[in-house]
Order: sequence, then C-alpha cells, then structure tokens
Amino acid sequence: MDSGILSPVRAGTPGEAATSDEAWLQAMLDAEAALTRAQAGIGTVPKEAAETVTRTARAEALDLRALAVASRETANPVVSLVAALTRAVAEVSPEAAEYVHRGSTSQDILDTGAMLVAARTLELIAADLEAAAESLAGLAREHRDTVLPGRTLALQAVPTTFGLKAAGWRRLLLDAHRRITAVLDGGLPVSLGGAAGTLAGYLEYAQVDGDARAQDVDGYLHLLLDGFAAETGLARPPLPWHSLRTPVADLGAALAFTTGALGKIAIDVQSLTRTEVGEVAEPSVAGRGASSAMPHKRNPVLATLIRSASLQVPLLAAGLAQCLVSEDERSAGVWHAEWSPLRECLRLTAGATHTAVELCAGLEVRPDRMRENLGLTGDQVVTERIAAHLTPHLGRAEAKRLLGEAADEVRMSRRSLAQVLASLPQAAELLPVGAELERLCDPAGYTGAAGALVDREVGRG
Amino acid sequence: MDSGILSPVRAGTPGEAATSDEAWLQAMLDAEAALTRAQAGIGTVPKEAAETVTRTARAEALDLRALAVASRETANPVVSLVAALTRAVAEVSPEAAEYVHRGSTSQDILDTGAMLVAARTLELIAADLEAAAESLAGLAREHRDTVLPGRTLALQAVPTTFGLKAAGWRRLLLDAHRRITAVLDGGLPVSLGGAAGTLAGYLEYAQVDGDARAQDVDGYLHLLLDGFAAETGLARPPLPWHSLRTPVADLGAALAFTTGALGKIAIDVQSLTRTEVGEVAEPSVAGRGASSAMPHKRNPVLATLIRSASLQVPLLAAGLAQCLVSEDERSAGVWHAEWSPLRECLRLTAGATHTAVELCAGLEVRPDRMRENLGLTGDQVVTERIAAHLTPHLGRAEAKRLLGEAADEVRMSRRSLAQVLASLPQAAELLPVGAELERLCDPAGYTGAAGALVDREVGRG
Amino acid sequence: MDSGILSPVRAGTPGEAATSDEAWLQAMLDAEAALTRAQAGIGTVPKEAAETVTRTARAEALDLRALAVASRETANPVVSLVAALTRAVAEVSPEAAEYVHRGSTSQDILDTGAMLVAARTLELIAADLEAAAESLAGLAREHRDTVLPGRTLALQAVPTTFGLKAAGWRRLLLDAHRRITAVLDGGLPVSLGGAAGTLAGYLEYAQVDGDARAQDVDGYLHLLLDGFAAETGLARPPLPWHSLRTPVADLGAALAFTTGALGKIAIDVQSLTRTEVGEVAEPSVAGRGASSAMPHKRNPVLATLIRSASLQVPLLAAGLAQCLVSEDERSAGVWHAEWSPLRECLRLTAGATHTAVELCAGLEVRPDRMRENLGLTGDQVVTERIAAHLTPHLGRAEAKRLLGEAADEVRMSRRSLAQVLASLPQAAELLPVGAELERLCDPAGYTGAAGALVDREVGRG
Amino acid sequence: MDSGILSPVRAGTPGEAATSDEAWLQAMLDAEAALTRAQAGIGTVPKEAAETVTRTARAEALDLRALAVASRETANPVVSLVAALTRAVAEVSPEAAEYVHRGSTSQDILDTGAMLVAARTLELIAADLEAAAESLAGLAREHRDTVLPGRTLALQAVPTTFGLKAAGWRRLLLDAHRRITAVLDGGLPVSLGGAAGTLAGYLEYAQVDGDARAQDVDGYLHLLLDGFAAETGLARPPLPWHSLRTPVADLGAALAFTTGALGKIAIDVQSLTRTEVGEVAEPSVAGRGASSAMPHKRNPVLATLIRSASLQVPLLAAGLAQCLVSEDERSAGVWHAEWSPLRECLRLTAGATHTAVELCAGLEVRPDRMRENLGLTGDQVVTERIAAHLTPHLGRAEAKRLLGEAADEVRMSRRSLAQVLASLPQAAELLPVGAELERLCDPAGYTGAAGALVDREVGRG
Repeated sequence: MDSGILSPVRAGTPGEAATSDEAWLQAMLDAEAALTRAQAGIGTVPKEAAETVTRTARAEALDLRALAVASRETANPVVSLVAALTRAVAEVSPEAAEYVHRGSTSQDILDTGAMLVAARTLELIAADLEAAAESLAGLAREHRDTVLPGRTLALQAVPTTFGLKAAGWRRLLLDAHRRITAVLDGGLPVSLGGAAGTLAGYLEYAQVDGDARAQDVDGYLHLLLDGFAAETGLARPPLPWHSLRTPVADLGAALAFTTGALGKIAIDVQSLTRTEVGEVAEPSVAGRGASSAMPHKRNPVLATLIRSASLQVPLLAAGLAQCLVSEDERSAGVWHAEWSPLRECLRLTAGATHTAVELCAGLEVRPDRMRENLGLTGDQVVTERIAAHLTPHLGRAEAKRLLGEAADEVRMSRRSLAQVLASLPQAAELLPVGAELERLCDPAGYTGAAGALVDREVGRG
Repeated sequence: MDSGILSPVRAGTPGEAATSDEAWLQAMLDAEAALTRAQAGIGTVPKEAAETVTRTARAEALDLRALAVASRETANPVVSLVAALTRAVAEVSPEAAEYVHRGSTSQDILDTGAMLVAARTLELIAADLEAAAESLAGLAREHRDTVLPGRTLALQAVPTTFGLKAAGWRRLLLDAHRRITAVLDGGLPVSLGGAAGTLAGYLEYAQVDGDARAQDVDGYLHLLLDGFAAETGLARPPLPWHSLRTPVADLGAALAFTTGALGKIAIDVQSLTRTEVGEVAEPSVAGRGASSAMPHKRNPVLATLIRSASLQVPLLAAGLAQCLVSEDERSAGVWHAEWSPLRECLRLTAGATHTAVELCAGLEVRPDRMRENLGLTGDQVVTERIAAHLTPHLGRAEAKRLLGEAADEVRMSRRSLAQVLASLPQAAELLPVGAELERLCDPAGYTGAAGALVDREVGRG
Repeated sequence: MDSGILSPVRAGTPGEAATSDEAWLQAMLDAEAALTRAQAGIGTVPKEAAETVTRTARAEALDLRALAVASRETANPVVSLVAALTRAVAEVSPEAAEYVHRGSTSQDILDTGAMLVAARTLELIAADLEAAAESLAGLAREHRDTVLPGRTLALQAVPTTFGLKAAGWRRLLLDAHRRITAVLDGGLPVSLGGAAGTLAGYLEYAQVDGDARAQDVDGYLHLLLDGFAAETGLARPPLPWHSLRTPVADLGAALAFTTGALGKIAIDVQSLTRTEVGEVAEPSVAGRGASSAMPHKRNPVLATLIRSASLQVPLLAAGLAQCLVSEDERSAGVWHAEWSPLRECLRLTAGATHTAVELCAGLEVRPDRMRENLGLTGDQVVTERIAAHLTPHLGRAEAKRLLGEAADEVRMSRRSLAQVLASLPQAAELLPVGAELERLCDPAGYTGAAGALVDREVGRG
Repeated sequence: MDSGILSPVRAGTPGEAATSDEAWLQAMLDAEAALTRAQAGIGTVPKEAAETVTRTARAEALDLRALAVASRETANPVVSLVAALTRAVAEVSPEAAEYVHRGSTSQDILDTGAMLVAARTLELIAADLEAAAESLAGLAREHRDTVLPGRTLALQAVPTTFGLKAAGWRRLLLDAHRRITAVLDGGLPVSLGGAAGTLAGYLEYAQVDGDARAQDVDGYLHLLLDGFAAETGLARPPLPWHSLRTPVADLGAALAFTTGALGKIAIDVQSLTRTEVGEVAEPSVAGRGASSAMPHKRNPVLATLIRSASLQVPLLAAGLAQCLVSEDERSAGVWHAEWSPLRECLRLTAGATHTAVELCAGLEVRPDRMRENLGLTGDQVVTERIAAHLTPHLGRAEAKRLLGEAADEVRMSRRSLAQVLASLPQAAELLPVGAELERLCDPAGYTGAAGALVDREVGRG
C-alpha cells in the first residue's frame, strides 16, 4: 500500500488518485480497448469484439499485485496484462479474445496509458494553477501599496510592496500554467508503432484479416492513427516515438518548472513567516501546523509541503531528460527507468499545486509587521535614494562614502537616517530639511514603479 | 586558461567562443552601455556621456582576471566591473563617468549580459540543428527502403529501415530546434529592476536629474524598458525577474532537451558502429578516431563527444530548474549558482550540435552489413509476421507456441525460418509453400509503414 | 496500492517488503516503544507502561491511510501517529498512555524509524551483493582463459578474457559491499534530540517525574542514549542530527554506488547479449523474457530491470546529498524531501541487487561466439602486439603507419592479418614466418596479464 | 581564459590553481614521465631515456590550446599530448623519444593524471576543513552557554545555545574531513591497464625489449605496478579500472558531502544574518560585501559563495556516480563525461572550503541580539517546558490545550508567558509563583543538554 505516509504533499489529493497504480492500470486497459475500437472502426476487428473488450477492460477485475509481480519476468507489466485481459474477455467471448492487443506491442499500450494518466493529471494541475494565480492577483491588488522591506542577499535592501511580491509569484504561476497547457495543447500523443515502430504487425493482421484498405499502407496508417487518437482523446504523433521520447521529456520539464515556481512562493512565505519577521502567516485552520511537542507553534506546513516537492521534482525530471538517450528501437532499461519517476513528478506536482491553492487563498498578510520591520534599521533602506540626491553634487564615490558613514552612525546611535543626515554638515547642506527630509527618508515613499508594475500585471483593484 | 582540454566536445568551436569569459564580460559591458544609451534616449543622461561609455566599454580594456578575483569580495563581478569601467570612462570624460551604471544594480547587468550571451549562442545552436536535420532528411530519403534489423531490448526484433531511423533522429532535432527557437522567439529579456525590483533607483535618478517624464512613473517605465530592449536587441519582460527565474530555467530545459536528442543519435550511431554490427561508420577523415595504441581502430569520436555532452547537460539544467527556488528579492547564493552551469549548458550544447553537423553530413551507411545482420538469425525477425498468418487458424496462444518451437529449431539447426516452417506439419499446412513462403519470410518484405512514414516526414527523394 | 507495477525491478522482492509503508510505520512504532523502554530502563517511566506501549505499538492496529492523509495537517505523520498510538494505549491503560512520546519530538521518531528500515534493508543488500559476487568469482575462475574481444569506444580493441571481465564485475560488487557495510558498521544512529536538538524535553520530564539522575545532565544523557540505542539496535550519534544529515547522505551515496556497480554489469551483459554479439545470455527460465509480439525473442530482462534502477538511484541520492543544506534546528521542507527518495533508493537498490543474484548465478557464457567474434576482423585485434614487434626496428611512427596500411588491406581483402603481413615486404622481413607468425597473430595468445589478474582476485579454480 | 569570473567561489584560490588546465596537463605529463621511470626501474627502458622524458615533460613547453583543439580528433587529449611530448623529447634525444608512452594507452595517462590532480586538491581541502573546524571548536567553547532561539520549520521552537550550533557545524566538517581523508588514505590509484585492461602492451614491449622478467607475467605485473605507484605517489589498484570507476565515484561522493556540509553552515549563517535576526555577521573587511547601489549594506558574501558551490556539486557528483555505468573495456562517451565535472567538483569544493576558513575564523556572534530575539514572543519558547510541569497533573492533552490558550493570550496581550500563566487559574494553581515561575519561564534556563553536548564534542573552554 502506498498510503502517502512518506509523501504528505500528495497524500489524499486528487492528483494522487489520478496517478495511482489503479489509475495507471485502467489507463493501459483504456488503451487496449481504444485500440480494439479503432480497429473495429476501420473494420478489421468485429464491432462486438471491440465492445466486449471495452466492457471487460476494467482494472478492478484484474489482480494488480499479481500483474506487478509477474512483470519482473518480462520487464514490463503489459505482457501479463494482455494475458489476463485475454482470459477475462475469453470468459465472455472466446472469439473476442482473439482481438485483444491485435498487432500491438507492450510499449504502445504502456506509453498510451502513461499519456492518458499524464493528460488527466495535467488538467488538475492547470486548474489549480489558475486558482492559485487568481488568489495571488487578488492579494496583489489588495496590497498594491503595502510597503515592506525588499530583501537581497539576506538583508533589507530598499522598500518594495507586497503587491509586487504577490504579482511576481502570480507571474511564475502563469508561466507554469503556460508550460503545462503547452504540453496539453501540443498534444500528448498516442503511441502506435508495433514491435519496432513500423506498425508492421497492425498492417499484417489487417491484411490477413482481409481488409483491402490495408493494402494502401499510407491510407491505413492514417485511419488507424486517427481512430486511435479519437478513441483515446490523445493526439497523433508525427512518428512512432518508442525511442523518440519527446513527450516524456516535455512532461518532466513542465513539471519541474511548475514545482520550481511553487517552491519560490513557498520559500518566500517561509522567510516572511519567520518569528522575527512575521509579515505573513499561513491560513489558520484548527489543528493545522501543530507541533508534537510545542503548544505555541503554528508551523507553516503548506509551504513546507510545497517546498518538499520542489526539491524532488527537478531531479526526477532530469532523469526523464536523460532518458532521451534511449538506444535502438526500444531501450533495454532506459524506457523502464521513466515510469516511476514520471508518476512521481506528476503526483508531487499535482499535490504541491493543490496545496498552493489553499496557501494562496488564505495567506494572512500583516502590514503592521512590515512597517515595524522597515523601521528596524532607522530607515537605512532608503540610502540608495539619498545617494541619488547627493551624487549630482558630490559625485558617486563621495556620495557613497558619505552615506556609508551615515549608515554606520545610524547603526551605532540607533537614531534615524534623517536625524543622522541632518547632523552631518556635508549632507545637511545638500539635502532638504525638516519634514521634507523626513519625507525623503520615509521608506513608504520609495517604492519606485512597484505600484505601476502591479497595475499592469493585475489591473487596478 | 580554460583551453577546453577537459571538454573536447566544445574545444575550438564557435559556441565556445560565444560563451567565453571574454564574451561574458563584453556582454555585461554591452549591457552597461546599452543602459546608458537608453537613458540618453529618454534624455536623463547626456548623449555624449552615453557615447563615451559605449566606446569605452570594451572587454579588452579591462583586466578580466583582476575582476574575477575581486568578485570574491562582493560575490559578483559587477561591482568591480563598474568601478573599472567608471575609471576607464573617467580617463576620457569625468562627467561621463558619473553616468555609468546610473540607478542600476549588479543583477540587472549580469542578467542582461547573460541573456545576450545566451541569445548569441542559441542562434548558433539553431542553425546547426537545422543543418544536421537537413543532412538527416537526405539520409532518410536516400535510405527509405534500406532494410536493417529493428532492435528492442538489445535483440533483433522485426525489420525496419534506415530511412525511418534517420527520420526519427531528424524529428528529434526538429523538436530540439523548436524548443530552442521558442526560447529565442519568446524573447530572452533584459533585466531591469534596480536594487530590489522596483526600478526605484532609475526613477529617482531621473527625477533628480530633472526629467519631468519621470514623474509619470508608468510612462517612464515604458520608455526606459523599451529603450533598453531596443538597445540590446532583447525582449521586455513582464516584470523584473531578479528572483523570478523563468528565462534561465527555460534555457536549461531547452538545452537539456537538445543534448538529449543529440545523445540519442550518438548512442544509436555507436550501437550500429560496433565491430560486430558495422552498419554505419563515422565520416572518414585522416587521423580522425586514431587510437594511441591500436593502429587498426577508427573510433567513433564524434558520437563519443556528443554523448559526453548529453550525459552532463541534463544534470546542469536540473540545477538551473532548482534555482527557481530563489528566496526574497535576490537570493544569497541561488542566483550565483546559475552562472557557471548556464555557461556550461550553453557551450556543451553548442559544441555537441556543432559536432553533430559533421556527423550527420558524413555518416557512412552500409546496406550490405545490414542485410548480413538480418540474415544472422535465419530470418527469425519475421516471426511476428508469420504469427499474424497462423493466428486466425490456430488462435493466438497456439500460434505463438508453434513459432516459439520453430524459432528454437532455427537456432539449433541453423536452417532458415522458411525451411523450418516447411518442415513442421502444423505450420506447413497453413502457410504457403515454396517461393511464396520464402517471400513471406523475407525480412525486406516486412517493413510495415516504414516507407510511408519516411515519405510523410521528409517527402519522396 | 503501490503494487510495484511501475517498478518491476523491486515488485515482490524482499527489499520491497522491508521498505513498504507498513514497514516504515512499524519502524516508527518500534522507535516509540523503544524510547519508552529506554526511559523505563532508567526509571523515569513505569516498566508496565513501557510494556503496554510495546505491545500496543503494532502497525496493523493503526489506519495507515488515515495517518497519511492526516499528515498533511502537520507536514509529518508522527503527530497523528502519536495521537493514534496514545488512543490505542489508553484503551488498555490510560496511565500508560501518558508516557507515549514523553519528552519527544516528531523528528526523533521518524528519523529513528528511517534508520531501522535502512538497517534492515542494507542487510538484505549486503547479503545479496555477497551472493552475486560469489557467483562472479566462480565465473571468473571458470573462464580464466576464455578469450573474447576487449572493446573500447564501441570497437574491438585487443583481446581480453571473460574471466577478467567477471573479476572486474565482482570487484565492483565488493566495492559496493564495502560501502554498504561501512554504513552499517559505522552505525546508523538513533535520533534523539527533542524539540530542537537539546534533549531539553526528555530531561525536563525526567526531572518533573522526580528522577534524581536527571539532575546530572551529562549522566542522564548517557543513560538515555545508551538505552535507546540498545533497545533499537542502532548506534549512538555524536550529536543530535536533526539538521546534521550525515546518515541520510551516506545512505544515498552508498546506494548510488551500488546501483552504479550493478548497472555496469547490466550494461555489459546487454552489450554481450546483442544478437550480433551473442557472447552471453541471461539464465533461461520458462516464460522469462517473452515478448508480447515476437515469439523468437528472449529478452535480457534481468539486466533491463537492473539498468532501470541504476538510472534512477544516483539522481535520488543527489537529492539526499542536497538535503545536507538544511537550515536551522529543523528545516521546513528539506527534511521532508528526504523521506520518499530515501525509500526509493533503498527499494530500487535492494530490488536491483536481488535481481543481480539471479543474473550472476545463471549467466550463460558462450566461448564459441567469443571466438567467432574475435575472428570477424581477421585478427586486427592484435595490431598492437605486432606494433610492439615492429617498433624497435621501424620506430613507432613508421610501425604504426605500416600497421594501419595492413589493417586497411585486411578490411578490404578479408584476408587475415597474418596473411597480409606476410605479403607486405617491409613487415615480412621483420616478423617471423609461418606458424610462428600465425601464433603471434592469434588473439588467444595476446591476453597479457588477464589470467594473472584473475588469479590474484579470485584464486585458481 | 577561464578567469573564474562566473565562479567567484574559487577565483584566485589555491584549489583553482591546483585544478587548472595547466595543472591537469602537467599531471598527465607527470604520469608519462613516471611510467617511463617505472619501466626504467625494471630495466625495460634505458635510465637516460626516462630522465630525458622526465626533464622534457613540462606543461609550459607544450601548446595547451593546440592540444585541446586537437583532442576533438581523437576524443581525448592524450593522443596529441603523446605526439607533442614525443616530438619534444626527440629534439633532445631521438632514442629516448621511442620510449614515450611505451605499451601504454590514453586512459592510463589521463586517469593517472586525474588522480594526481585529485590527490593534490584533496589535501588542500582536508587542511582547510581542519582549520575551519578548529575555529568552530573555539566558537563552540566560547559560546557554550550563549542562548538563542532554536528554530524549527521557520519558527522559534525552544532555546538552544550558539555553542551547540557551532559544535554541530564542526561535526559536519569533521564528517567531511573523514570522508575526504578516507578517499586519500584508501589510496587514489594509478591507472595501468594498457589498451583494454590486460596490460598486454606493457608486457609485450617488455618481452620484445628482451626483459626476461616479463616472461613471469605475474611478477612483472607486480614490479610495474609497484614502480608506477612509487613514482607517482599514488596507490596500486586491485585491478585495472578503465571501466570500473570506483575512484571517480568516490571522489564525487566525498566532494558532494563536503559542499553539503559547508552549505549547511552557509545557510545557517544567512538565516542568522537576516536584518530582522541579526545574531551573527560575517567577518568585517573593508569593502567586503559592498553593494553596487546600497551604501548601508554589508552582504554575507562568504556564505553566499559557499552556498553557490553547495548547490552545484551534488548534481555534478551525481553525474560521476552515473558514470559507473560504463560499458565495455572503455566507454565511448561515459568516461569522457567525467573529466570536466570532476574538475568542477574539485575546484568548487576547494574554493568553498577555502572560503569557509575565513568565514569560521572571523564570524561575529551577537549574544545581545540573540537575547532580544528570545524575548520577542514573550517567552513562548518555553511552552514545552511548562507542558512537562502541567502534564503530570492534567494529562498531556489538557496540558497542551491549556498552553495553546496561554500562547494565544501571550500573542494578543503582548504580556510574557509567566504573566499570562499567573493569570490563568488552572495553570497558576499547579505552577510555582513569582520568581520561581519567572525562572521556569526564562529561556536561558531551558537549554537541556546543550552545554553537556558541547563539552563532549569540544571539551571545556
């Protein structure tokens, strides 16, 4: 039982169900059934046989574990799946049983099944990315002008806004969404190649079965591919892809990107959640985030789950990219190394995206803590701004030196930057005084184009 | 000196030159100059200053090594690059020197420089992919009907054609080409964010410099971004991307795909080159492939070089995907972990593609050895075909059993499959006899849709 | 249900059972029980309570799936496991229930459980490595003088022996065995740190419970650590290792090495199995290696399964090495990213090793095919030897040139190297004639130290 | 020129020099010279020839770039290196030139050279790890009782001490040191196999040269291996390891561990450096950590550099582990994929370790900020302790509930935990009052075994 106990990011999520062993088995059975129906559509298989196969090809009727164990004998589960399905169909109709897997090969079934699973899971991911992005758009609009410290290399740098931060997170999710839907729209393909990618078996059976159309190889190829694609809802590939693994590499890349994008949000949420920062908090849910030992804690568990996925998926996806280097007409091991990592990429990403929907929808933002934190350094976060005002008079080097001196004085004296600048003759002479200087040193006044950027990205609230 | 001695796949190639340290330094200087010109275009920097900066910003005028060593003090090379460039400009014009890097931040320069390098290298890669694909199209047409054993799980399976194999390789290169050009066309972006992604420094300097347009933040933003994009030839990003690393992750994914595609060709060429197979040979060039000890060898060195790159790039690209998880407004280390792997991805891929052009253009194909190899097993490569003829009479299981028996007999007796089938009463009864049986067992007659697939992919020769 | 259908390399193997979700759950329960017993041993927990907890802490009594789903709320499964165990114990004895998880923290339990699972699995792996190595030693002795072509860069180079090849495979397995047992012997440690690695909770409860010994912090620490180690059979760590992840990184490295070593054997078996090479075959088992479509095939499925694992584990292990970079006293996500990859590394490696035992025990070796293959090139595999005889007379460059010419002639004429050399005046003059020349050109005579190396490694047969 | 401009972590460091292209070339030349001397030691090469080769084999005398570019023709640099060295030696002594590379193969030279480079670099790394560990031991002793918040899942959890933190960092460095020295002490081996690992070439030349000892194959093998090992200072391998890549995989694993250990320190330093935390600062050096735009910043650049390496090395090392799967007697591409990543692992790790020496030696620790941060939450960091006192009276669940309530009240009221507890009747009744309650709630009193653990690790200060 893979309960998910070692992978809470996906335990109990829709993406986990969509990628379970049962789902994978059903998808392979769907491929077998669709193939028979496609052949029936052309006329090389009796319609009744196709119907019987379709009705019988149900995962719950097969012994999944027995198939898995038997798969060690042939290095893939399809050989025993075909045997089991054939037996099951033969119980209903011995004639129909002869048409199971007709002219086919294990890889056509396993790959088509994988694409069905992938397509179903990508749709879940795409919908969740949209939902999370929509929440972030709301946050961006709401906090268009909520100022907080921009942080670079771990230190407060210059002010920014939470609206811009949220808009950036959303932009990454839109980027992920575009990559996921590009894979979906580009069309995850059926696999149809027969024993070594020439479709010879399909053609030969059709000819033996007396289908005149099979004499026209190119025409029959069209009919069969169109039929199989239509019956599965998948796309037609330009060529059989048994050892041309573009679809799997593309899935890996899109999923790695997606968890990377989600991981960026997670790590930012964690940075902002730190006790000493406290600028955001995860949605509050009774019991959520509880520690086994410390009653006061409310751990950022959603971000933690998401981050755990973002650390795993890029490596698994790298393995899928490496599987492009797949020898011959079918590799002895490289193909087999794709299955488990592909499933893991799918369910980790789906789980992380599902988790992100809740995180983004309920994130608590704390403008007061942001303001407090901006004040921690006596407004040093605006030294860049003051430099812009001093530089025309002093030159860049001298302006920088003077502000370095001012910053040191702020740190030691714990006075504000404005106070210190007013006390330094060289600076005081060149800068405005009083309220005008206070205004210039107010972090809230130095957010640059943050608001304009937010408006462009998500519109005015 | 990085001579390439540990990386022959790119030593001396155009892609190596395009990604050298000097090229990277020049690209950063190009970014500085373009920024000044963009500011001059709006009017916040004197045109003469921009011209002076542009003329002075030459890599050869700076001490690359000194910059590199100094970069340890600030964790990036731009701080000392700006100092060096400012000094160089000041020697020509102290006024102009004040406008170097005005309002800017290290990351804007380094990232923009990186995108310039990447764009230049991707163009080389795209052109080489086209050239290699064109060669493969020629091979596919020429060998549309050249039969060889299709191989799966290391064994001869059913016949295929070399044309289909070459068409598959070409398809992968076209897939790679589409991914590379998608990155190029989607637009590698300038980086323009200022200290923490709000562009505040740019705006403040513009306002201090008295540019009225800078009061209209959104308008100024447009002008500056458009100007910088125009001056560099790069695209405008939707948002500052200091910690939204889509462009770098995309580069990694496209380059990993490309080396994977090339690696597939390389590994196939190696399989077919094996002494015992001998179906292809690398282009013959005097001295090429020589061994230090064995006078008789002509090693498949081009495929070897390509394969060495295909093993490295996906892992480096995984690192780039992981760098999406980049905290805050600028990460303390994650950003820095991108530079060297990105360069390595670019130059390994460019080197491998360059190598593939030569490999594909000159690959020797040996139809005679293919035919010999097809004969090695007494035509067992057509058992699937015979099964299609026996199954309607015997049922699938019995047909398979009978053919298994025949195959065993072929192996033991070293007779041909046709001879053995003719001698087995159960088979002989159901199959044609004599020349007709010979025809059925001829591997050359069982290539399925291979020809039709080639025609669709590359047209008739 | 994780049936193993996507991972045949481990489906149904002992290593799969040792790493199942149930095994993991039981190991965590074992950790809870051992902790209570250790505390009872010191006297801070009543002995009866420890016994009750131990009896009750059975995986089958808990709802694994419910725990997994609940783990999303706290980002780890221990919080709900503790609640469930506490309820179960309370049904037997409410007093005992108070002592469950006393002073502890989730990570102590999960990490200790992980080490228990790892230790049990490594023992399986170590035993299987020994068994496979023993088979290979037998093959090496048996085939000490069985000559086959040594191959470099895909081409026949000079002769070697199958004995040396098998001795090399064995050496790699011994290297793996040493790395696995080093981890086992070095001692996979208990985890005992409490909430943040100071053991404060354990100490405080002990003091509150009135244990005078707990006043002596260092002494109590000794007692508790020794007790916990003794009760679990694990080692004592030098420090709490919540965020010092040496044990997990070490496991990853040893397992990656092991699958790499196995993968080397697998890929060599596949190379030698190729139809055109045919020098070895996997053990023959009825039904094993069957194809769904091609009756004549007997696929090298064991090597295929092993190779599929060897492609996956190094990447998963890299993820574990990256998890060393784990912030604070416990990471928010990095720790969580270890669990699933660690399990996958363990079960893939255990499955691959289990598979290798069968492969090595039953590998068929075909000396006749080896001899045939050596003859394929007209004995060009000994050009290096002839060069050694010509060089003293001609100098290296001229000797190499002459032999290159001879090799070309051999290829074109299909005569043997000896025949060609005898016909080239410059060579004939310097080389022996007749039988002596034949002997010099006999590949079987040019195996260098192969036999001596085999003898050293595995002794005389 | 690889100036290091894209890799500041190693620019200008000793490890960079030890792994430069020149160093690599010299190491290969050292291997050639040592081989000749070893052969001279046995008597199969004239002593004068060996001396001439040794004197001539200087990197500065060869054109590194030309060798690199030429290496594309043979897929490795040794073929042209041998030609160039032979020419150089021939200028001095044509007779000596005949003995260059006698009986050898490219891989023997390249691999032996790589091991020389690796050994030299590991020694640098080991020394730096010791130095950094020593500094950390000092910090641990000095701050044995310096209390700061222990942090888990981004939040303050319970108190710990900086001494324990530093002791943990040191422990990781000692773990790294043990792994590095294990590789060094285990013995990085010479490579000596000849064309395909049988040493046949070496033996044949010796026999042709008339050395009677070469008739005793096993004896000659001993002499040659011992001689080569002695001349290089490397170890004797059990078998030729051309395609048994244990040494390279081991290097990768040890280096990945080391950067992981260093990365843990770096990420902790960054967490503690954050403006809002401020508990440590990097050593203050004039100009160090300067920002190009923000005069007030002093970026944690050392930690940033170290972290950048820790993100790269594990992936490169995974590539090296994958290279264990190296086909035949020498792989066509897998071997070639090791060189550049191995060098990168070495120099990144050496650079990061060098950087860590400075970081650890000069780290500023700020106990005042630690105390301030402990106070931020009104002492909620001791709720676990209070739970230990309430649980015996209330049971665990009720104690936890009550403390959750107290924590909420602390957050809302901004009163201290002691004040709140005193005001809650249920708690007040069971807990001590006044100063005793204050003492119980004082974070400084709840550091568990932290001090004792530090004492064990580093002794009393």
